[in-house]
Amino acid sequence: MYDLVIIGGGPGGLTAGIYAQRANLKTVLLEKMGIGGQICMSDVIENYPGFKSINGIDLMKLFEEQARALGLEVKFAEVTKVLDKGTHKEVVTSEETIAAKAVIISTGARPRRLGVAGEAELIGRGVSFCATCDGFFFKGREVAVIGGGDAALKEGLFLCKIAKKVHLIHRRDAFRAEKITQDKAIADPNFEFHLNKVVDEIKGDAMGVQGLLLSDTVTGKKEDLKVDGVFVFVGISPNTTFTDVEKDDYGFIKTDRLLMTSAMGVFAIGDCRDTPLRQVATAVGDGAFAAFEAQRYVESLGE
Amino acid sequence: MYDLVIIGGGPGGLTAGIYAQRANLKTVLLEKMGIGGQICMSDVIENYPGFKSINGIDLMKLFEEQARALGLEVKFAEVTKVLDKGTHKEVVTSEETIAAKAVIISTGARPRRLGVAGEAELIGRGVSFCATCDGFFFKGREVAVIGGGDAALKEGLFLCKIAKKVHLIHRRDAFRAEKITQDKAIADPNFEFHLNKVVDEIKGDAMGVQGLLLSDTVTGKKEDLKVDGVFVFVGISPNTTFTDVEKDDYGFIKTDRLLMTSAMGVFAIGDCRDTPLRQVATAVGDGAFAAFEAQRYVESLGE
Repeated sequence: MYDLVIIGGGPGGLTAGIYAQRANLKTVLLEKMGIGGQICMSDVIENYPGFKSINGIDLMKLFEEQARALGLEVKFAEVTKVLDKGTHKEVVTSEETIAAKAVIISTGARPRRLGVAGEAELIGRGVSFCATCDGFFFKGREVAVIGGGDAALKEGLFLCKIAKKVHLIHRRDAFRAEKITQDKAIADPNFEFHLNKVVDEIKGDAMGVQGLLLSDTVTGKKEDLKVDGVFVFVGISPNTTFTDVEKDDYGFIKTDRLLMTSAMGVFAIGDCRDTPLRQVATAVGDGAFAAFEAQRYVESLGE
Repeated sequence: MYDLVIIGGGPGGLTAGIYAQRANLKTVLLEKMGIGGQICMSDVIENYPGFKSINGIDLMKLFEEQARALGLEVKFAEVTKVLDKGTHKEVVTSEETIAAKAVIISTGARPRRLGVAGEAELIGRGVSFCATCDGFFFKGREVAVIGGGDAALKEGLFLCKIAKKVHLIHRRDAFRAEKITQDKAIADPNFEFHLNKVVDEIKGDAMGVQGLLLSDTVTGKKEDLKVDGVFVFVGISPNTTFTDVEKDDYGFIKTDRLLMTSAMGVFAIGDCRDTPLRQVATAVGDGAFAAFEAQRYVESLGE
């Protein structure tokens, strides 16, 4: 019987692993794909304190080395189910079933993509899914925001204070965002709206994004738009289908102040939980906190 | 008028500074003493993800450089009052009064000291105020825990799973800790209790702690106790007297899930808030989160 199973090897899960090892909890971390998670797609991270500028893969290598040096056991397997057996949990994976006293879910989320030409190739070179992460790189330049929901408008407003101009591309003629956010966006002189438009292609080369090819959904007319960056906000999907704990309407896991989910002894951290901010810094804070709380929970169970 | 005043230049405040600069908030960070805060007293930090082992001062230099490279303004001044003027706040310092739309309090806390010979000199060389931070260094060795409250027993139980033996030194013959914690401590074979004992001196040299000189409060008899580490848990005091926001019985600032205090637009992060875990990792998470929320708050005010 393990004390703790950590599901997911991104920044939050690895931090939980570091703290769990230091607390002498018998712990295993399960990862489906590759250690590091979504952040490995980031070319330049400048907002994780301690590193002025570092590549996502390099940062996650440091996290992994630190966790492994403390003896953290890592297994590669996909979790299909977490069962609450009262006194303990059973984590069912593609390989085996693992019994544990506590579970930390740190499976992350993935931004939905547009699925157009140029998008995948230009990630980290002008195509971004996070204004808080990458907005600063576009100080005084022109960027496009794709989407019409709350996230698109809010992140767009954030970018309006950094970029010279923010072009908002939306496939409909009305927004789904809250009224107050819409009013603010409309009042902001740095915002320029392109309604009834879809992105056909993101253009760029090794130097980065150069512009968009847009198509009007009403007239069918095509046009080019010159921008240096493209922020895609067409939704984000948490990786939480394997668990039955309480979630919000979008599938993000609800937690209390101690990061415990609706299931006793099951914690959720980082991008997969219902939080307004998804950053390495916040995942790290969550990871340390949840490992500490998991230790207290395991302690409370006694022998 | 500043958008944001950050009070306190430890890990949480510097992280908030990094995030605030990247969000283009007009920000100033106020520090009373020296940048870095309490963590600068830590000789070896091994649980901040990204650094296998680093000195507290070196880590805080990296944080500071990163914040300053982003243009963060830092002023050295002691804050004596934060006044809520409705539409804005006034931060009164020893030097001037600063107007701002939002405030982040990151003033930290300080562990109370025993005040005995050897204590100050041996901090970072066997004298510690945090089991989660330093317990791991004493794997398989003997340590002493000083105190009889909840923190002393809980941290002692944490250490019992790491150290070979934990000597609990308490000046009374009964504990103030919760009954359930006491029961667990008494049942733990790794715990050895030394009641009615006070520490007269912590003995050691350049190589670290070597032992304690104890004195019996009833008989007056003195004795030596050989230990490799000393964990002092005789209370922790938050640096929060300058503010009137709602606090718990010990002076720690109460916050909601968004880290906002009882005063709109005033946030509290890190060690000074009512949290069960005080770490660089959690302060960093708090700092990123509060700067993001402060930005949303400033945004909501409009012009």
